[in-house]
Amino acid sequence: MEYKDAGVDLSAADAAKARIKALAKGTFSPAVLTEIGSFGGMFRPDFAAYEEPVLVASTDGVGTKIQVAIAAGVHDTLGYDLVAHCVNDILVQGAVPLFFLDYIAVGKMEPERIEAIVRGFARACTEFGCPLIGGETAEMPGTYASDDYDLAGFIVGVVDQKKALPRGVHEGDLLLGLPSTGLHTNGYSLARKVLFDSLGLRVETRLEGLGCTVGEALLAPHRGYLAALDPLIERRKIRALAHITGGGLPGNLPRVLPTGLAARIRRDAWQVPPLFRLIQKGGQVADEEMFRTFNMGIGMVLAVAPEDLHEVEHSLERRGETSFLLGSVVPGSGVAIE
Amino acid sequence: MEYKDAGVDLSAADAAKARIKALAKGTFSPAVLTEIGSFGGMFRPDFAAYEEPVLVASTDGVGTKIQVAIAAGVHDTLGYDLVAHCVNDILVQGAVPLFFLDYIAVGKMEPERIEAIVRGFARACTEFGCPLIGGETAEMPGTYASDDYDLAGFIVGVVDQKKALPRGVHEGDLLLGLPSTGLHTNGYSLARKVLFDSLGLRVETRLEGLGCTVGEALLAPHRGYLAALDPLIERRKIRALAHITGGGLPGNLPRVLPTGLAARIRRDAWQVPPLFRLIQKGGQVADEEMFRTFNMGIGMVLAVAPEDLHEVEHSLERRGETSFLLGSVVPGSGVAIE
Repeated sequence: MEYKDAGVDLSAADAAKARIKALAKGTFSPAVLTEIGSFGGMFRPDFAAYEEPVLVASTDGVGTKIQVAIAAGVHDTLGYDLVAHCVNDILVQGAVPLFFLDYIAVGKMEPERIEAIVRGFARACTEFGCPLIGGETAEMPGTYASDDYDLAGFIVGVVDQKKALPRGVHEGDLLLGLPSTGLHTNGYSLARKVLFDSLGLRVETRLEGLGCTVGEALLAPHRGYLAALDPLIERRKIRALAHITGGGLPGNLPRVLPTGLAARIRRDAWQVPPLFRLIQKGGQVADEEMFRTFNMGIGMVLAVAPEDLHEVEHSLERRGETSFLLGSVVPGSGVAIE
Repeated sequence: MEYKDAGVDLSAADAAKARIKALAKGTFSPAVLTEIGSFGGMFRPDFAAYEEPVLVASTDGVGTKIQVAIAAGVHDTLGYDLVAHCVNDILVQGAVPLFFLDYIAVGKMEPERIEAIVRGFARACTEFGCPLIGGETAEMPGTYASDDYDLAGFIVGVVDQKKALPRGVHEGDLLLGLPSTGLHTNGYSLARKVLFDSLGLRVETRLEGLGCTVGEALLAPHRGYLAALDPLIERRKIRALAHITGGGLPGNLPRVLPTGLAARIRRDAWQVPPLFRLIQKGGQVADEEMFRTFNMGIGMVLAVAPEDLHEVEHSLERRGETSFLLGSVVPGSGVAIE
């Protein structure tokens, strides 16, 4: 018997590794000291400009967005989603990315598909200035169906401790929302159940109201907010950030508010995009459940001092970034959406 | 419709998170600045003793060892395996751990099981001095069967650049092998196929030759070599390390040898443990395939200068560590096992 008879193809793994190596190399900076294939990826940080450098790390998956990608046969966007998700998570702490690693587990090692997946990682790693310095690609026929896979990403960034967020959120601070591009990476199990099972739609169904196919709408990339927000963090114009992921506004805003403070948000401060309305109507999902499951069109929330509002809005505008004045920080706990 | 109807239970997720938070906290050092539940885990490194600190990062999974754990109903050892695997991978570069993050993806969120999994992570994180500062726990009913799950781990460590390995491996250097405790985390698809499918054994089958059940033998923890090797790295008595994972001795030794140098290994330098012999015989697996799939009883290989052999062996012995003189570094390429 050979390893291949057990569903693990080491020569396919070698072919996949060669493709990963070339793609990852395109994301490297001089700080990266090793090629892909080393036991550990080595990164020489330059902390000269930092008084007290603090490492900030985060890990994420893309949930069952993968199932939509598989149904649509599109594999080169999930990696982008995952990097953007991780970049946003450490941005909430005020950190900029240093490097990224990926974990890819597949039912069957298909070098072309692995290459497509890593292309997504590499594109985002280049865009966000975050070299892809290592990863793991595992063929696990016992866990995944042959067409199935899972992805996880891991990011490390740095922030100077004195600039770390959240910092000094006060009653009366204003909450600004930045638009998401879709579901980002949360709520896909419910979205798929409603759209595919209840409404009988397919990834290739084109819907007038969406202006694209259901698959395209669902696979819209998770946005990264680094470029829009880093200059404001640098100038200390932001007191807190909340990345609106699983749990939605009510689940994520309280994570960055001090005890005793709550968020009050006006429901009409922005328009909930058509995809969310379609899911809500199609699945007869209660308002509260929608807000706890989806980002509802808001991907990132900023808490800013009232006196900084004008400058923050202006800075965002100059970068072509729309923002909505969602509400404010009030005494209490939790999030009220009124 | 509710999110729960789509197979995602947010209240079970909250219960799981509370358990994770408590377990992770037990692994913390004063360098950890955030609780579990922050968007990013914050770690303030102390690089005062380092001339030129280089970050070393690695990610891994436990492969289909998970399937054995599920069959045996034992969930609190895989996390240990994963941390040990990651610790060993960065040790190959000479690095000591700073912190760890975990990714847990499940078909169904069962707080008890999540707690058992994280207990394994936490035990190893404490043992290896590597706080568990963050992670992701995802319920993905579309990807995993309800009893099924996958794990990935991410580690970041540090090494002073002047002490980074491999460094200065020469022809004539000696290769020392340290024993593994079993399959560690590689070759499980083949092992399961032979033991369970071909031989019809079960996890609870007790085998005379193994001195335990098949499940116990297969779930033996992945060993971490940090304590045994760190003092030798510190004293610069090691020129290279190879962690014997997927690909075995022939796949991993060349990863740390310079171009033009090969490894010659004596087949009779150590005794291949009974579990490997059982798999080889049961599956009629060729010698070469065995060595490319399994560690065959050797978990870590050291390359040392001949003049340092005595000191290295003595230091290992003092730490209760057995070592085998496997062979030496010779001109050529690859690995010859004779």
